Amino acid sequence: MSRLDSFIRRLTAQRDILNTIAPAIDHLKGPILELGLGNGRTFDHLRELFPDRRIVAFDRAALAYDHSMPDEGNLILGEIQETAQDFVGIGAALAHADIGTGYADKDAITLTWLPQVMAGVLASRGVAISGLPLDHADLEPLALPTGINEGRYFLYRRR
Amino acid sequence: MSRLDSFIRRLTAQRDILNTIAPAIDHLKGPILELGLGNGRTFDHLRELFPDRRIVAFDRAALAYDHSMPDEGNLILGEIQETAQDFVGIGAALAHADIGTGYADKDAITLTWLPQVMAGVLASRGVAISGLPLDHADLEPLALPTGINEGRYFLYRRR
Repeated sequence: MSRLDSFIRRLTAQRDILNTIAPAIDHLKGPILELGLGNGRTFDHLRELFPDRRIVAFDRAALAYDHSMPDEGNLILGEIQETAQDFVGIGAALAHADIGTGYADKDAITLTWLPQVMAGVLASRGVAISGLPLDHADLEPLALPTGINEGRYFLYRRR
Repeated sequence: MSRLDSFIRRLTAQRDILNTIAPAIDHLKGPILELGLGNGRTFDHLRELFPDRRIVAFDRAALAYDHSMPDEGNLILGEIQETAQDFVGIGAALAHADIGTGYADKDAITLTWLPQVMAGVLASRGVAISGLPLDHADLEPLALPTGINEGRYFLYRRR
């Protein structure tokens, strides 16, 4: 499978998981966190799914398209590893992180801190959606929506 | 529709058009040109579809993933507007360009030179696939594969 095919499947998995989870977190209070704003495509989708929620986005730099840029108080710039740590305990209903690089050595470094941060920012029963696997005692894996292959995207609920 | 939805549809259109066109250019000689290597996803797909063809990729800088990087003779670095001009007359069987930015003012500048370059590099009956519309007397629009909306991607044959 080409990287183009694989990328389409990964983005589709991301989108389908977000759509599936949206009604399932309706009853939870708390903001939504987007770790890795990038060019803002997923932020734009989150904004459509959750028009009434605070959505906080994190990235090293503000690189999103103009119309997909969070307002100032909801864009946290700096190394995500450090900035997201300040949000541990905020009780997020949902946290999404698509910050894998495709390079195993770089992703291994991300995975030294990401599972703890993702578990830490969530409310109890809050949901973590991630492009990288999150191995953490407080994160219980959830079944993926139909049609998404195991390992293409990862879905958890905070205990 | 969110930008994530729109992006998935655009990449899917790109992939489906490439797959549809691949057998249709079998009888044509000439290389394949990829204007805008980016991180190399589409190059990787082209390499799978056309394992025996020369594929020449253009970009400002070499930013592709290691395993999707063309070898040195087939990666042309510099402003595409200038470097691709040197390939006018090469008689390419296929040229693909996905170099739209989503900003109308920037894309308008690209469209001052892209149609002429795309028409110029192609052999007669060669195919142009583009994320931006190519208005050029030598480029005849082709029908898109089933399921792709008009305007999402563009397909032409050189007269």
